[in-house]
Amino acid sequence: MIYQLALGPRERKSPYFDSTIRAGASHFTIYNHMFMPVSYGDPDAEYRRLIEGVSLWDVAAERQVEISGNDAERLVRYLTPRNLNELVIGKGKYVPLCDHEGRLINDPVLLPLSDSRFWLSIADSDILLWVRAVAAEGGFDVTVREPDVSPLAIQGPKAEALVVDLFGDWVRELKYFWFRETELDGIPLIVARSGWSKQGGFELYLLDGSKGNMLWEHVEDVGAAYGIGPGAPNYIERVESGLLSFGADNLPDSNPFEVGLGKMISTDRPDDFIGKEALRRIKETGPAHTLVGIKFDGAAVKPNEHPWTVLINETPAGSVRAVCFSPRRLENIGIALIDSVQAAVGTELKIQNGSLSYMGEIVPQPLVHPGTPLPAFEE
Amino acid sequence: MIYQLALGPRERKSPYFDSTIRAGASHFTIYNHMFMPVSYGDPDAEYRRLIEGVSLWDVAAERQVEISGNDAERLVRYLTPRNLNELVIGKGKYVPLCDHEGRLINDPVLLPLSDSRFWLSIADSDILLWVRAVAAEGGFDVTVREPDVSPLAIQGPKAEALVVDLFGDWVRELKYFWFRETELDGIPLIVARSGWSKQGGFELYLLDGSKGNMLWEHVEDVGAAYGIGPGAPNYIERVESGLLSFGADNLPDSNPFEVGLGKMISTDRPDDFIGKEALRRIKETGPAHTLVGIKFDGAAVKPNEHPWTVLINETPAGSVRAVCFSPRRLENIGIALIDSVQAAVGTELKIQNGSLSYMGEIVPQPLVHPGTPLPAFEE
Repeated sequence: MIYQLALGPRERKSPYFDSTIRAGASHFTIYNHMFMPVSYGDPDAEYRRLIEGVSLWDVAAERQVEISGNDAERLVRYLTPRNLNELVIGKGKYVPLCDHEGRLINDPVLLPLSDSRFWLSIADSDILLWVRAVAAEGGFDVTVREPDVSPLAIQGPKAEALVVDLFGDWVRELKYFWFRETELDGIPLIVARSGWSKQGGFELYLLDGSKGNMLWEHVEDVGAAYGIGPGAPNYIERVESGLLSFGADNLPDSNPFEVGLGKMISTDRPDDFIGKEALRRIKETGPAHTLVGIKFDGAAVKPNEHPWTVLINETPAGSVRAVCFSPRRLENIGIALIDSVQAAVGTELKIQNGSLSYMGEIVPQPLVHPGTPLPAFEE
Repeated sequence: MIYQLALGPRERKSPYFDSTIRAGASHFTIYNHMFMPVSYGDPDAEYRRLIEGVSLWDVAAERQVEISGNDAERLVRYLTPRNLNELVIGKGKYVPLCDHEGRLINDPVLLPLSDSRFWLSIADSDILLWVRAVAAEGGFDVTVREPDVSPLAIQGPKAEALVVDLFGDWVRELKYFWFRETELDGIPLIVARSGWSKQGGFELYLLDGSKGNMLWEHVEDVGAAYGIGPGAPNYIERVESGLLSFGADNLPDSNPFEVGLGKMISTDRPDDFIGKEALRRIKETGPAHTLVGIKFDGAAVKPNEHPWTVLINETPAGSVRAVCFSPRRLENIGIALIDSVQAAVGTELKIQNGSLSYMGEIVPQPLVHPGTPLPAFEE
C-alpha cells in the first residue's frame, strides 16, 4: 500500500528540500508544518551508515522559537519544570515543557545565545503559539518569533572527523550540547555537538534559509571521503537507544514522569513555573503509566502504522508505541506505555495488532547500548 | 515524482481511516496531527461529484477544542475579534482567532452547545495549546480539552436529499450553520448544515470514534441511490469559490484584514479581546497585503507545491498561494497575496515558478460563482 503525500503551500519546504530530492528522498512526514524526509528508500543502508559511518539529515523541521528581551530568561525559567540554575551561554539543555496540568507539550533543546536571547529547538507542536500566549497574558517583556534557522544534522561515528575537516580542530573541544556561531564559505551557521541519535554527531543550525542547498552540497562534498550519505532521524536506532519521540511515545495527556523524564522535573524549585502544583501532585501519587522497553517473538516486523495493544494476563494494560526488528539484537523490540503497576522488567506481554499477535516481555532500557556494533553478516 | 507518506503513531489515524483506504484513498496530508485523505486518485471525478452530485469527505482532522465551565462564554468572546452579540445556542459561527499582535492563528467555526459549553472546530494549528495557555494565565474558570468528535462531510447539490433520507424531513428546516444533536442507528452525532465548499451540504460530527467505519458505510449505502463517492476538501472548488485555506493563503504573520476577513473584525467592541489594540492600529493604517483572485495564461497547470512569485512591472510584489486549471472558467486561475498598493482588479502580473513564467491579471472574486455549472464535454 502506497500512501502518497500531497505537496502544497500549507506546509513549507525545507531549505534543503531540493537537495534531499536529488539525494533520492522517498518517504516524508510533516513536522512543525514542514515537509521532512524520513527515508531515502534503503532503510538498511541508512541504518548502517549511522551506526558505522556518517549520515546527513535534513532536520530543518526542528524549528526554533526565539525568546528575546528584558524578561527572556525569566520567561524561559517559567516555561520549563527543569531546574536551570546551571544555565550557561553557549551550552544547550534539554528542557521538557509542560502545560498547567503537567501534561508534556514538547521536549525542546534550549540554546542560550546571550543573557537576553534564547532558542527553543522544538519537537512537533506549535510552541510558538504557546509561548506567545503565556508571554502576552503573563505580562512578560519579550519578543517571541520563529527566526530563519534550519538545522542540518551530521550523525554517526565518522561525524567528528568530517566536521573537523569543515571547521577546524576547535570542533574537537566542543563538548556535548555546546554550540558556537561561525560560518562556512560565507554561510552563517551555529555548530552544536548534538543530534537525535546515540551515535555521536553535530547539528549545523543554518542561519540563512536561502543557502540550504549550498550548505548541503558543501557537506556532501567534504563528506565523500568518509562515505557520507543521506539519512533521517533513524527510527530503529532511536528505539534501540531509548530516545523519546514526542508525540509518538506519549499520549496527549501524558506527564513527564510517565515517559522517563522524571529526573528533569524539579518540583522543589523555589520559583514558580508552569505546571508546578500539578507535577508535585503527580510526583506524590506516582505516574499512571510507564514507558518501557520490550522484546517480542515472531518474524521481523516493520515499523507500526499506529499503536498496538498490550495485554497482560489477557487484560488491556497499555499500548506499544513503536516496534522494529533490531539489527543489533537480532530480534523484535519496541517501546510501550504500560500501566505503572504492571511495568516491571520481566513482565510477560501479549501484543496485538489487529488479528496478529505476539508474545513478549518487558526488558531493561536502553534496548541496545551505545557503541554496540552491527554483527558481521555472511555474504 | 512520488513522495510517499510515512505512517506512524506520532500522527493519528482518523476513525474513518480504514473506510477511506477501502474507498481508494491515494493521497494524504497531515492536518492537526492526523492523517487526512486529500485525493482518491481521480481528481476530475472527485470535482464533478462535488459540483453535480454528492461527495463524502473524511474531515475528522477538523478537531474540536471544547471550552466548558463558568467562564466559557467570557473566554470565547475574549479569544476572537468577531462580535458575538448574536450568539445563539445551536448555530455555528465563523470566528477568526488572532494573537496579541493581530496575527491570524486559526479560523474555526464556533459551535455553541449550551451557555457553558462551546466547540472551536479548527483549521490546522494547535489551538488546544493556545486556549489552554490563555485560560490558565488569564485566570478563566474553564476546562479545555479535545473531545472524541470527528466530522464527516457530505457535500454537493444532492447532499440534502441524502441527509433527509438518513435523518428525516426536519433536516430541510436546518438553516446554514445550524446544528442539532441526534443519532443514526445508535451512532451518536451532531448534524450541521455546513462544510468547506460552496456546493451545499452537511457535516456529521461523530461523537464516538469507535463507530467511524460504521457511520461511513451507512452513509455510503444510503448515498448509493445518489451516486455518492469519496472526495476530500476540494482544492479546485475552493480556489474557484474563494474559500480561505488557513496556512496556505496566509503568511505566518498575516492579519485578518490581509486575507479578506476584515468584516469579521469588530475593533469597536466595548469589551476586551486578544489583539484588539493591534487590530485597531492595522485597521487605521490599512493591511500591507491583500488576497486577490488571479487568472493567467499557458497550458493547464497542476496544483502548486509551494508559493510562486508575483512580479508587477518586473518587481516582486507578492506570492501566488494556490493555482489550478478551472473546469468551469476553462482557464488557469489562482489566489495571490499581493502588496496592497498594487492589488487593484485589472493589474497585470508576471508569475514565476522557477524557470516557468506566466502572464496574468487580478480579477474579481469569487473566481466562479456558486451555481455555475460544468460545461458539457464532447465525448
